[in-house]
Amino acid sequence: MPENHTPALNGAESLVTTLAASGVQLCFANPGTSEMHFVAALDRIPGVRCVLGLFEGVTTGAADAYFRMARTPAATLLHLGPGLGNGLANLHNAGKARSGIVNIVGDHATGHARHESPLKSDAEGVARSMSHWVRSSLSAADVGADGAAAVQATRDGDEGRIATLLLPADTAWGAGGRAAVARPAEAPAVVLGAVPAAARLLKQLGPRAVLLLGTGGSRSLAAQQHAAAIAAHTGCQVLAEFYNARMPGGRGTHGIQRLPYSVDAAAARLAGAEALVLAGSTEPIGFFGYPGKPSQLKPAGAALLELAAPHHDVPAALAALAAELGAPPVPAPARSVPTGWPRGPLDAESVAAVVAATLPDNAVVVDEAVSTGRGFSSAMVSAAPHDWLPTMGGAIGFGLPGGVGAALGAPGRPVLVLEGDGSAMYTVQALWTMARESLPVVVVIFANRAYRILQGELLGVGAAITGQKAEAMLSLGNPALDWVAMARAHGVPGVQVADTDGLAKALRDGFASGGPVLIEALV
Amino acid sequence: MPENHTPALNGAESLVTTLAASGVQLCFANPGTSEMHFVAALDRIPGVRCVLGLFEGVTTGAADAYFRMARTPAATLLHLGPGLGNGLANLHNAGKARSGIVNIVGDHATGHARHESPLKSDAEGVARSMSHWVRSSLSAADVGADGAAAVQATRDGDEGRIATLLLPADTAWGAGGRAAVARPAEAPAVVLGAVPAAARLLKQLGPRAVLLLGTGGSRSLAAQQHAAAIAAHTGCQVLAEFYNARMPGGRGTHGIQRLPYSVDAAAARLAGAEALVLAGSTEPIGFFGYPGKPSQLKPAGAALLELAAPHHDVPAALAALAAELGAPPVPAPARSVPTGWPRGPLDAESVAAVVAATLPDNAVVVDEAVSTGRGFSSAMVSAAPHDWLPTMGGAIGFGLPGGVGAALGAPGRPVLVLEGDGSAMYTVQALWTMARESLPVVVVIFANRAYRILQGELLGVGAAITGQKAEAMLSLGNPALDWVAMARAHGVPGVQVADTDGLAKALRDGFASGGPVLIEALV
Repeated sequence: MPENHTPALNGAESLVTTLAASGVQLCFANPGTSEMHFVAALDRIPGVRCVLGLFEGVTTGAADAYFRMARTPAATLLHLGPGLGNGLANLHNAGKARSGIVNIVGDHATGHARHESPLKSDAEGVARSMSHWVRSSLSAADVGADGAAAVQATRDGDEGRIATLLLPADTAWGAGGRAAVARPAEAPAVVLGAVPAAARLLKQLGPRAVLLLGTGGSRSLAAQQHAAAIAAHTGCQVLAEFYNARMPGGRGTHGIQRLPYSVDAAAARLAGAEALVLAGSTEPIGFFGYPGKPSQLKPAGAALLELAAPHHDVPAALAALAAELGAPPVPAPARSVPTGWPRGPLDAESVAAVVAATLPDNAVVVDEAVSTGRGFSSAMVSAAPHDWLPTMGGAIGFGLPGGVGAALGAPGRPVLVLEGDGSAMYTVQALWTMARESLPVVVVIFANRAYRILQGELLGVGAAITGQKAEAMLSLGNPALDWVAMARAHGVPGVQVADTDGLAKALRDGFASGGPVLIEALV
Repeated sequence: MPENHTPALNGAESLVTTLAASGVQLCFANPGTSEMHFVAALDRIPGVRCVLGLFEGVTTGAADAYFRMARTPAATLLHLGPGLGNGLANLHNAGKARSGIVNIVGDHATGHARHESPLKSDAEGVARSMSHWVRSSLSAADVGADGAAAVQATRDGDEGRIATLLLPADTAWGAGGRAAVARPAEAPAVVLGAVPAAARLLKQLGPRAVLLLGTGGSRSLAAQQHAAAIAAHTGCQVLAEFYNARMPGGRGTHGIQRLPYSVDAAAARLAGAEALVLAGSTEPIGFFGYPGKPSQLKPAGAALLELAAPHHDVPAALAALAAELGAPPVPAPARSVPTGWPRGPLDAESVAAVVAATLPDNAVVVDEAVSTGRGFSSAMVSAAPHDWLPTMGGAIGFGLPGGVGAALGAPGRPVLVLEGDGSAMYTVQALWTMARESLPVVVVIFANRAYRILQGELLGVGAAITGQKAEAMLSLGNPALDWVAMARAHGVPGVQVADTDGLAKALRDGFASGGPVLIEALV
């Protein structure tokens, strides 16, 4: 090697360069030894901000919410198969949310991986279980192109997908790195073939047809407005799926309601429907199967017509459908600003009233309130305009990381996390990242001191509790978690409230403080 | 169906019956909807105690340590693919520890799994990445036999293995369950074929040979005594692997030292060796690969001779080797009870002196102290007799769950957990289970407020930090975690100490209290 050769990029530096050039501006990291060259490269190569999480589920959950707000993928930086394993649950959720994420997973150096070392694992197997795309780099010269391919893979055939790049340590430290750049994202396909049939069906069936919006149909106000115009013109019903990755709501929107969670309520809501027109949605399926209850929620004989698939340009399809029908725009219903709430104890209804009355303008609400959160949607139509981000995929532990990701993906907007005490415990470490990054997040923990959702589910599946052992599996009361101490442990100020006035004051103080703040709400 | 038929078992009840009949006495559970029938069955069928964890990594880490002490598998109860994902890192560790665990993972009802529901995932793929055995039950009638097969699979060809049984909800709630029972465990094979060759090699090479003990050779005091006799007779060196699933130590033992962790130190320790005789150990391999450093730690030309594989009866092989050599027993060196420690601040050396002086008799020490813990082994030879349980497999997050599992697997023995602040955060929820079950566990958190191990590793891999972004990825100081508040949050009393006298008092008070107690040691 000549002594005065130009310093070249190592593999890790070529990857950071590639990610920055491909629009990846943020990396949620929980690194280990195998990722030290990537960490070092962050200093030398500008363009990628790095945010530390103290547990991998924090990084993947934050990346999910970040994508939903920023609409561009973040990277995660994870350590070997076990580290990736710790991030899987929120990758599952992100996959169901169609969020794009590039996971960079350090692995043993290629020569070292031949030997039986303690941390040797089937990292590719772990990755495949929850990724749409997996690749392991073979040499430092490949890492740049592999990184660009990973970014492209997050957009391949869908709005967002999970791409996992395994980076053996020697491909990171090796010389000869070559930076690359991903192709820019393409606009979603405008597919209008089903527009005439959908128009005929809705006109013919009127209230016996349901226009069902998926995320692509509920995320944009324009799409919601087209849907409302179609409903007003044809008399059809409009519903959104129970889970939407991001749904604008509050005053100024049409207040489109979501299909209920419970199988019985959802089936009742769809009873009498003869057709479902799917606008970026999929056939409604119950969350779980229950003895003697259907998995498919639509009436047995009802037709399904796909107006647009989730990865299509759903707003364009709804606009074309409204035009085909000649449906004129209708204004959103005027709703007055909610000013009060019932005085007294906190329950699902009174909490929703307080939140609706105190939410600041343009907030992002992350919803993992589970049992306490089911009652929010009717109150929130009168709240200030906001975006609503629920846990997609049903793996609990999204809420607190989601607050981190939403704040970083929507800079300047206040974030409210509505969180159950049971679910908060899966990724509680996210509180520290909120403090570390001074994020404007107000967290409300609904402390019912139980897996209350499971107490209901136990009845739903027909399993009767006959003794204390089973009861104990659903109770978190012995000992009670102390959420104010939990907040302090992670560097976040905390306060406990037990009634509606206390919650309202704590919420207003929290938003005024700039956050982060944790409110323990005894329900 | 006749009205007065004898109530039959459902699938879940047949499984609980089978587990109890097969020697599984404990279930570490983090259940969801799909597991409600299993939870309900715990009340109706006696014999399986259920301990709740608030995060899946707590349940799998506890099951690992439980097996190491009780030498019989525990079950875990986990919820679908994402829940199993949260438990993978400690399953990785358990696999490397050769701990037997039966994971019961609820899955969607078979009819429901055909549909695209939010929680649908490739649970089998998640399971395969970290299990030796995976099966999905097909009907309620199969569940009992499948459970018995799972228990048997934990012993199939090794001391302990990871078996994962996926239980679709309808196979749990369905009628027609039939209980089964696993075959009893067989004694490990006594394999003596290499004894004469090992005897010749050790006699011939003397100090240029190393007798390397794996867990099977270090776990029993008898095996340690045989090894010491062999060393005294032949002049060979005796070392234990750096990681041993369970190693008795302290006064009355021969104080067998472990191979060092760092590649350089381990290679130096083995320099000059012409042969390694493996007694339940495997070829020593560096933890990570580093640029320009070997993966294999033995000198290039040194021979390897396997006296006994890890799953063989290693004590029997060592006894036979001692007999072949005619090596008479040698007494363990007499060591006086340590009474003091250097006054002043806490560092690796002074902490070790305090722990050695204050450890109660017959304690179980769970070691995940990472950077602070490297210096313990020389001080601990003078401590009271104890068992030492390190993180096997290197996936951090074992320590606190390990304290739970060790306490339940060795009832009546005090447990000390030595834990880094960074590593504690991966499964901090274990503190709650300690409080819930009133476990006699004293936890010492070494609060260096950094991923200090990574600060060293960064140098080891030759990656230089040039700026603040990388530095920030290794620091946990902004904000500092408040471990006394963390303990209180989970219902555990906590105290902060900053010098050796304070640590000694807190340890003595903690053990006297019966625990659990958390001590934040500022290092």
